[in-house]
Amino acid sequence: MRKVDPERQAAQRGRILEAAAECFARRGFHGTSTAEICAAAGMSPGNLFHYYPSKEALIEALVDADRQAWAGRRRSLEEGDAASLLGNLVEEELARISDPGYRRLAMEVLAESVRNPRIAERVARDETARKEAFVGLLRRAAKRGQAPAGFQAAPSADWLLLLLDGAFSRAVVDPAFKPRACARRIRAAVAAMLKEVP
Amino acid sequence: MRKVDPERQAAQRGRILEAAAECFARRGFHGTSTAEICAAAGMSPGNLFHYYPSKEALIEALVDADRQAWAGRRRSLEEGDAASLLGNLVEEELARISDPGYRRLAMEVLAESVRNPRIAERVARDETARKEAFVGLLRRAAKRGQAPAGFQAAPSADWLLLLLDGAFSRAVVDPAFKPRACARRIRAAVAAMLKEVP
Repeated sequence: MRKVDPERQAAQRGRILEAAAECFARRGFHGTSTAEICAAAGMSPGNLFHYYPSKEALIEALVDADRQAWAGRRRSLEEGDAASLLGNLVEEELARISDPGYRRLAMEVLAESVRNPRIAERVARDETARKEAFVGLLRRAAKRGQAPAGFQAAPSADWLLLLLDGAFSRAVVDPAFKPRACARRIRAAVAAMLKEVP
Repeated sequence: MRKVDPERQAAQRGRILEAAAECFARRGFHGTSTAEICAAAGMSPGNLFHYYPSKEALIEALVDADRQAWAGRRRSLEEGDAASLLGNLVEEELARISDPGYRRLAMEVLAESVRNPRIAERVARDETARKEAFVGLLRRAAKRGQAPAGFQAAPSADWLLLLLDGAFSRAVVDPAFKPRACARRIRAAVAAMLKEVP
């Protein structure tokens, strides 16, 4: 019997997911064959299917990986200056929005979630983890007096996510949309949100 | 030979599209059978296929109808107080965003557009018509002195559409999202945008 090496397995899974994300971002979910994913991962079909028995399983795993990444960074978001960490998070999301490959991948996941309740449920959980990160940072910033009196973390997080998701949507539907111009406005909104009490 | 009655044909098409929109909003594009659309439209399959040979053709026609509606109201948006008309347009979009049936239909169209370049092209044209309406109204408001000095219509329209599409996205992905709370902020953004020069 072959010995199972969990570390090697995790590395294999990571390699496959990276290859799948790259292929889906380039050619779309339905435009990508499992043969292409195998080639990109440098892996045999038998090996790929051992880890992920279908393309659907790959999309599910990609969404789960994103959620796990949010969970994994929870502790790091609980230490250090909350306002700066929030600024970094916003910059990170703005960089994703400016990346056509990321946009395509995210749209493919969204389109699959409309069809497939298993994927929709995973996307919702990922979204919850993302929102918790924003609410947590805003709450912590408010506790440190970095927000005006009467500040409420949850609605402010809703607004911030609305701005980011709006920028994502416009970048998807409007080829003339300039993510940079809106990034300035979004940064200003974050700054206004956390303006210290005078 | 049967005489073709263009008015009757247009009415039939309208009836089918209304039935299809209702079915897609309720059960999704792939969850809806043509038999269900026939029943909802009170029409035989032969009659339905005469007008729309496939479900794809129905989605395409729904997007085209939306674009034509934008074109049809162009003249009415060129008359009357631009700032009030813009306010009405924003209210109309906010009402759509609060309607789960509309959200589902819009998501189904978006998901199909990810798969199908013919639909993607139509969605892009519809989106252009929508944006032109916003830019036109903002430009007209600025000409009448209803905007501060240095006001630029196109980036302001981009921002407004970002807010509306962001609200739509959040309503789709977050069951706890409250469209009303964000509607207040969006109205405030419109008001701030068009604040007259003091």
